[in-house]
Amino acid sequence: MTEAEFLAALRTLPLHPGANGLSDDSASLGQYVLTTDTIVETIHFLPGDLPGDVAWKLVVTNLSDLAAKGATPVGVLLNYPLSGGAWDTAFLAGFAHVLRSFDTPLLGGDTVSLPHGAPRILTLTAIGSAAAATPLRSGANPGDLLYVTGTVGNAGAGLAIARGKPGPDELLDAYRRPQPRLAEGRALAPHVHAMMDVSDGLLIDARRMAETSGLAVTIDLAAMPLSQAYLDFAGRTRDTRLAAATAGDDYELLFAAPPGHTPPATATPIGRFDPGAGLILHDGGDVLPLPSHLGFQHDI
Amino acid sequence: MTEAEFLAALRTLPLHPGANGLSDDSASLGQYVLTTDTIVETIHFLPGDLPGDVAWKLVVTNLSDLAAKGATPVGVLLNYPLSGGAWDTAFLAGFAHVLRSFDTPLLGGDTVSLPHGAPRILTLTAIGSAAAATPLRSGANPGDLLYVTGTVGNAGAGLAIARGKPGPDELLDAYRRPQPRLAEGRALAPHVHAMMDVSDGLLIDARRMAETSGLAVTIDLAAMPLSQAYLDFAGRTRDTRLAAATAGDDYELLFAAPPGHTPPATATPIGRFDPGAGLILHDGGDVLPLPSHLGFQHDI
Repeated sequence: MTEAEFLAALRTLPLHPGANGLSDDSASLGQYVLTTDTIVETIHFLPGDLPGDVAWKLVVTNLSDLAAKGATPVGVLLNYPLSGGAWDTAFLAGFAHVLRSFDTPLLGGDTVSLPHGAPRILTLTAIGSAAAATPLRSGANPGDLLYVTGTVGNAGAGLAIARGKPGPDELLDAYRRPQPRLAEGRALAPHVHAMMDVSDGLLIDARRMAETSGLAVTIDLAAMPLSQAYLDFAGRTRDTRLAAATAGDDYELLFAAPPGHTPPATATPIGRFDPGAGLILHDGGDVLPLPSHLGFQHDI
Repeated sequence: MTEAEFLAALRTLPLHPGANGLSDDSASLGQYVLTTDTIVETIHFLPGDLPGDVAWKLVVTNLSDLAAKGATPVGVLLNYPLSGGAWDTAFLAGFAHVLRSFDTPLLGGDTVSLPHGAPRILTLTAIGSAAAATPLRSGANPGDLLYVTGTVGNAGAGLAIARGKPGPDELLDAYRRPQPRLAEGRALAPHVHAMMDVSDGLLIDARRMAETSGLAVTIDLAAMPLSQAYLDFAGRTRDTRLAAATAGDDYELLFAAPPGHTPPATATPIGRFDPGAGLILHDGGDVLPLPSHLGFQHDI
């Protein structure tokens, strides 16, 4: 059973109206937005990653989902596997640091012990105070432009550096210490038709937005915002643009907004929504075949 | 680092006021009560347990925490490790059954894949609509009586049966399909000073209530409510009373209420709170030394 099949089966269960048909990374409950993410050692982080970096990523992946709804963090619940050793102490220090960095208090949680040798699995649930209007993933309209905040590809390059490739700290930091776009999300929420964060890869996430909106999306790789550090590290080729568009973990915001207005946050238009279905990829004047790998997928 | 040491360290982080100093199994947020529990294969359930029973227990452990606050389930978030096989399908069927049984819709969640051979780890977060007054674990007063709903020990006997000991289905069902005391919790909430569920064992949980209330608690084993099925299975001895008082998973409610009033739910007085600290154990006229094992502890 793939993730998509599992989600399809979950949609046949009794769903809360705030579940948004399970088509979003967040749920709505009264004045709150709720989101939860689980990270697994060897899948979402490396066994050698520093515990403080793991704490950072665990919290930021969730706060990024709140940012994509324009929500402001209210508190988090932590589900933590005690190992009994120095990892716990270092994790706690990093967890305190990231909570303080984003002014987010702890609400509760649960601790468990794991069988010897089991990979660490950590879950965080974040609760946010909802914006006046919460943009869904599914709200894009035909003719809307697709925008992304910041630059993409830095975290993917940082992962390669974490795995041993030589490269600058700026890119490694993008992988280890991503920033949730909370201020940008709050500013954008009243002005966009649809919004989500880029966690699994720009192409796969944009296709998800198009699919839940019942539209086609055309993306121009040549328009993608890439950092100078990324270009210096990877070079300016079609392959490196594709690598940036299919790498995950950037935690930038991807949104659909009508043309003719400048969004109230720094963002680059990279595509357009039209009637139809699917993802069409351009690179300047060329239409490209879709790569087999659009981003990180949990399918097994 | 033990669970107690980890919790003590978490209490030095920025805490939300609704975290109740992390001294409760639930948090309060506006009109909502939030609780989360993680269960681990080989620790909280057996590899051979049926997936439907695992789904049941995952949901009920959380709903039981809501019951202990007098809250009514509003929705749940599920963090699920996909295995890709028949286990997923069977889990989904059981998950649908338990959600329907307690009129609880799905709000959202996350799916992950696990490395090959890793034990399953499942997390559920339940959100409830709060009672007019939410009883904490820490509210017991000197002179209050300690009560427990229903009977205790059945689930512990059921675990022995699940592990191969011959015994009746009634006890096995108490282990496999515990019932959250939602109606009892709602009825009791306005009348009690403190309330929690019995998940790790009556003695350890009662001692936790006394400790967070800053009191001593005296429990009379001879007063403990035991089912006829338990007595037939285990016999009527001091050892079997002790076994029932230290077994977990019964999910009955334990509460402190002033003497002289009959609680508005079927419950048995089994002890008393007094100034001081610690747990004092009687069995009829005899004062007993505390057993080394008061219940299930996560300490490692």
